[in-house]
Parts: sequence; structure tokens; C-alpha cells
Amino acid sequence: MMNFDFQNPTHIVFGHDRLDELDGLVPKDARLLILYGGGSVKRFGTLDKVIRALEGRDLFEFGGVEPNPRFSTLIKAVAAVKENNIDFLLAVGGGSVMDGTKFVALAAAYEGAPEDLLYRRVKAGEYGNVLPIGNVVTLPATGSEMNSGGVITHGKGKYVVGSPLVFPRFSILDPALTYTLPPAQVANGVIDTFVHVCEQYLTYPVDARLQDRMAEAILRTMIEIGRKTMDEPADYDLRANLMWSATMALNGLLRCGVPQDWSTHMIGHELTALFGIDHARTLAVILPVMLETRKEQKREKLLQYASRVWDIDEGDEESRINEAIKKTRDFFESLDVKTRLGEYGVKRAELTDVIAGLKDKKMTKLSERGDLGPDQVLAILNAAY
Amino acid sequence: MMNFDFQNPTHIVFGHDRLDELDGLVPKDARLLILYGGGSVKRFGTLDKVIRALEGRDLFEFGGVEPNPRFSTLIKAVAAVKENNIDFLLAVGGGSVMDGTKFVALAAAYEGAPEDLLYRRVKAGEYGNVLPIGNVVTLPATGSEMNSGGVITHGKGKYVVGSPLVFPRFSILDPALTYTLPPAQVANGVIDTFVHVCEQYLTYPVDARLQDRMAEAILRTMIEIGRKTMDEPADYDLRANLMWSATMALNGLLRCGVPQDWSTHMIGHELTALFGIDHARTLAVILPVMLETRKEQKREKLLQYASRVWDIDEGDEESRINEAIKKTRDFFESLDVKTRLGEYGVKRAELTDVIAGLKDKKMTKLSERGDLGPDQVLAILNAAY
Repeated sequence: MMNFDFQNPTHIVFGHDRLDELDGLVPKDARLLILYGGGSVKRFGTLDKVIRALEGRDLFEFGGVEPNPRFSTLIKAVAAVKENNIDFLLAVGGGSVMDGTKFVALAAAYEGAPEDLLYRRVKAGEYGNVLPIGNVVTLPATGSEMNSGGVITHGKGKYVVGSPLVFPRFSILDPALTYTLPPAQVANGVIDTFVHVCEQYLTYPVDARLQDRMAEAILRTMIEIGRKTMDEPADYDLRANLMWSATMALNGLLRCGVPQDWSTHMIGHELTALFGIDHARTLAVILPVMLETRKEQKREKLLQYASRVWDIDEGDEESRINEAIKKTRDFFESLDVKTRLGEYGVKRAELTDVIAGLKDKKMTKLSERGDLGPDQVLAILNAAY
Repeated sequence: MMNFDFQNPTHIVFGHDRLDELDGLVPKDARLLILYGGGSVKRFGTLDKVIRALEGRDLFEFGGVEPNPRFSTLIKAVAAVKENNIDFLLAVGGGSVMDGTKFVALAAAYEGAPEDLLYRRVKAGEYGNVLPIGNVVTLPATGSEMNSGGVITHGKGKYVVGSPLVFPRFSILDPALTYTLPPAQVANGVIDTFVHVCEQYLTYPVDARLQDRMAEAILRTMIEIGRKTMDEPADYDLRANLMWSATMALNGLLRCGVPQDWSTHMIGHELTALFGIDHARTLAVILPVMLETRKEQKREKLLQYASRVWDIDEGDEESRINEAIKKTRDFFESLDVKTRLGEYGVKRAELTDVIAGLKDKKMTKLSERGDLGPDQVLAILNAAY
């Protein structure tokens, strides 16, 4: 097992009918900016409930945080924070709103150019007072509700930002708030969770038995409930299991003491930025080919994955690995998610743009071993077409 | 799944050679009280390393915190805190020292009678400034390094104390610091971890799939490595897996959204207080009989336990459950731990003292259903004899 540090102070408030507890979670004299996305939190009444629970406080709203939240949008929220002397940020929505809110908190506390945040040039000591963040989560997927990172879109690029200063103070997770999600977004959440785990699990063995088994626990749970929770959107327990799994997949526990990959994510971010493909769908396209291509480097963990996640114990090593990868792809497709790049309207000639994007961000040595360069990424993209 | 709250701010510093980082974890101007147990942390040089890492600070020592730390001992540490204007507590040891240090922190911050803490009569707002706590862990077992509770002995009773105010600021977990433990203490750690999980898992199903699988992950890991790490004390990875499992077994994650039992612990505490039997050994005595006695109430989870933890899938329900319980007992005995109360020198006539002790603490409705009364406990004790 590798050395590690773990610390995560976020207060998780999980379950039925917990929205009223906002009143006890946010200071009575707070001046809040409530950030949200499109109209769904308004349409389904969540925003109204939030506002009622916070009665007596000065509330300001900032709607319109788009999926893959844009730098240019968030900068407007930073202005609203300063203009209104905001002292508490409340995100109501999914990963994009929560990620964007973290960026707003950091940018509002930083005197330099906010672009510096995109390139991770700012150290903790260079921030002024970073505002506390709370979340009301409506979409289980990114894990942003219990971690200190986020992904921001700027121009034609997606940038990972973050700091321990933006761990949420609290996150309210009420599975019932997700009943109204369109099935495609639920599928995205299942796949995002699944691939977050794979990035921290399908690497090479370091005898981290509990971490491996926890990873397998989430993967098996996703396989069990993924399709079911799309088909039975108002089954509370299915949604509760999805929601808690999504949180646990990226709250820092799985990566304790193990190598991490993240190359599927880095390539996926470019695909989203360039072609507007949903984040989770880019992962569903890249992961199977990544595993196929990196079979040798990931051999031992792929065999473990085949056995413990997919119950594949018969046949030679090669065939067990191939079957596990095929089952992974089939699982994504069973959620009505296409797993071929060509099916998303991308042209073959555009694949080199992905390489240019990665090079621009100096991401030329990806994977848990730092041995995945631009040529191999191009081969993966072609194989995923 | 049941509603739940989770919050745990402790910073875990896990791995090889991390003791030097104490210098960065404790304020430079701190006045520390270093608490420890018997002589082993002196004899094996851990205390020296701790003192070297903290050079430049005002250090005071309080040794002699015994196993099942006594109220009367800890009260002396409280006096030392006040006398020396201590502003940071550092526990160097296992669960007893860490538990005792939490009590010292609370008692030093409370103006009323310290006995009030034993009866959980004190609310968070009634404490003054509770001193920060750090831990250097030398014995993986209790999970005290990442939770806010502890168990204190007073007279002939063991009392659970705690408050969110005593979550450790940090805990350094270096598996190599455990190499010198006697095998019997390692066995205790394995069993304590195992039974902590059972108390949160072997209840009734509430469709908490991830929590169940995480519980099973720790149980399987203990079964795999328990005996091995006794036999190969200097195998780093075995100890690392034991240490991280022990922490994760009782840091609040497993109990999220599920019923909890803890009756084996409550009975075990009485056995330790009355007869001086090691805590883990009391659990090894009680758990198998508890499961046997509560077969009906725990049926569904026992069947799941049989299948997922012990791979028992053949035979009728009754025989699968019986086999799982037998394997549990055999596992404890494979660690050279006796599982019959009579083997620990207790007399049958003394069993009623246990009932009296529980009644004294108003523990007359134990179990996840609150339906386990004194008569049934006496029957369990007799069956465990």
C-alpha cells in the first residue's frame, strides 16, 4: 500500500425531507447567493422549498449555470458576490452547479487574474477569505458534494480546479429530489460514478485490499441498480443507493494508498470541450478502448475486475479480460448510452484536435504510470471511433 | 436506507516514516501533554522519535494510562493539563490511550463534576475550550483514531463517552510502528475490528447496498489477513491492511443509513469491567452466541453474511446460518482466542453480576430492535459459558 493523507470535513445530510434543516445549517444572519442551473430546480419546486427554509436571511439568486460551467458565466457570479457582500454560497443542482460554485468561492477570494485558477497556479495562502459553501444536490454523479475539486470550461478547454478551502460545509442529499431527472441524466450519473471508480481501481495492484473491495462494492452496486433506477425513477432505495455510491466514489476514500489513472477523464474532457458530448458519454466511449489498449499494463487488476465484479472465472487470462471489457461496454449500452465516437457526430479528421488540446494543457504523459503519450491517445481515439 | 448524517474531520496521515511530519501538524508554540500507556512506546523508541519531531515546543509527559483507562488515572492527567497550561494533547499508543485522551480533553473543558461525562449528561455548549488532540497510533483495533468516542472505566463499570468536539485533529498511522506488538494484541485488534463491523451489519436489511458491501469488504479482509499478520509481524502490507480496516470499521461510514446493534459490546464491557477479560476476547465469547440466539431477528443478514463473507451457498437456510456462525467462532479460535466464558476463569454464579451492571446503566433494551432484555442476556451468558 502506498502512503496517503485523507481528510474530508464535509457534513453529509442524507435522506428524506431534510431540506428544512437548511435553517440550522446556514447562519441566521447570512447573506446568501443561491446558484443554480437551468429551470428545473424552479420548475419542480426545489428552489421554492430552499427559499422557504432560509426565510429571514438576505437571499440573492444566480441562475443559468450551464452544464460544463463556463468561466465567463461564473465570473458574473463572482461580480454578484462582491456587489452584494455575499457571505455564504449555496449551490442547488448537480455537479456543474456545485463545481461552478467552488470556482466562484475561490475566484472571489483571489486578487489576481481568475484565469490563474485554471492553471492551478494559486497556492492556499494566496487566497483571502474563501466563502463557505453548502449544497442541495439534485443529481447524483460527480461526487462534487463531498470533495474539493471541480471542472470548469474556458474557451475550448476543460480545466480541473480546486483547493481544500472549498470542501463544502454541508451537502443535503435527498434521493427524492432526483425523481424528476430525465433517464439520460440518470444514465450519465451511473456511468460517471462507475468510471470514477475505475480510474482509481483499474491500475496495478499494491495490496490495498479494503480500497479494492470498496471499489468493487460501488461497481457491483452500479451494475445492479443502474438500469433499474432509470426504469423506476421514484424507487427511493434505488436512488439512495445511486446517490451515496456517487458521493463515495469521489470523496477521496477510494484513492487512499493506491495508484490513480484518470486518462479516460482527461481525454473525455477534451471531447466534451470540443464536441459538446456529455461528460459521462465521453467516458463510456473511451474507457472500454483504454482498457483494451492498456491490457498489459493493467493485466492483474483487469483479471481481478473480471472475477470480482463480473464473476468471470472461466477461460484463459486473455479471454477473461476480453469478456470483462465487453461486459463493461454492454453495461454502458444497456443504459442507452452509445459507446462509439462516430455515433456522436465527430469526424475522424477532428480527432487530432483532441491531441492538440491535451498538448496545450501539457497532458502528454497520462495514466497511472505516466507512460501514455499523444500517439497512443490518438490510437485510442481511432479505436474508439 | 435510513436517513443519516456523516461528518468526520480527522486528518489521516498514513504510511511509512511519517512521524517527522508531527512538526508540521502541531503548532510551533504549542505546550503539549504527551499521553501514553505502559513502557512499550519508550522501550521501542517511538516516544523518543515523537519528542525529537516536536523539538522546540514545551513538552510534558503523562505515562501509565492503563488498558481500559481508569477515570481515576485520567483525572490526574486533567490536573496536569491545568497545572501546565497545556494547549495540545498528543496520544501515543492504542485505543486506551486515545480514548483516555478524549476524556481528558472533555473533562479539562468542563466545569462540573467529571462524572457527568460518564453518564453523557453534558451538552456540547456546556464545554469550554476543548483542547485539540493528535494521535500517534501503535495498535490498530478500536478506530478511536478517527472517531469522537471512547470507553472509560470507573469503579466496576465501563462507560462510553464522547462528543464531536474530540474528533482528533490528526492521526498518524504507520503500520511499521505495530511490528513489535505481541501476537495476542494483534489478535485482539483483528477481532475488535471484525465485531465493530458485525454490530453495524448483522441486523436487518434496509437496502443499503454499499454499506453492506463495505462491511463485507472489511470482514473478508480480516479473515484473509488476521492469522497471517500475527505470524508475519513485519509484513508491512498485512499490517497496513489491518490498520486501515480497523480505522474504517469505526469511523462512522459503516453505520450510515443502517440499523446498529452493539449489544455484544455492551455485554462485553461488563465482562471486562467485572472480570478483567480483554475487550476483544469478550466480543469473541459473546458474538457467536448472540448470533445463535438472535437467528430469527437477524435471519436475512445472517444468510447474506454466510454467502458473501464465508461463501456458504449450499444447504437449507438453517444449516447455512449455523455454518456461518461456526466459522465465525472457528475464525476467532484460529487467532488463539478462547471463545467460552468458562475458559476465562469466570464462575457461573457471577453471571448475574453482568445483568446488575447493565441494569445499573439502564441498558435493559439492547439490540438493533431494542428487544433484548436482561433475561435474554442472562441466557446468552449461560450459553456462552
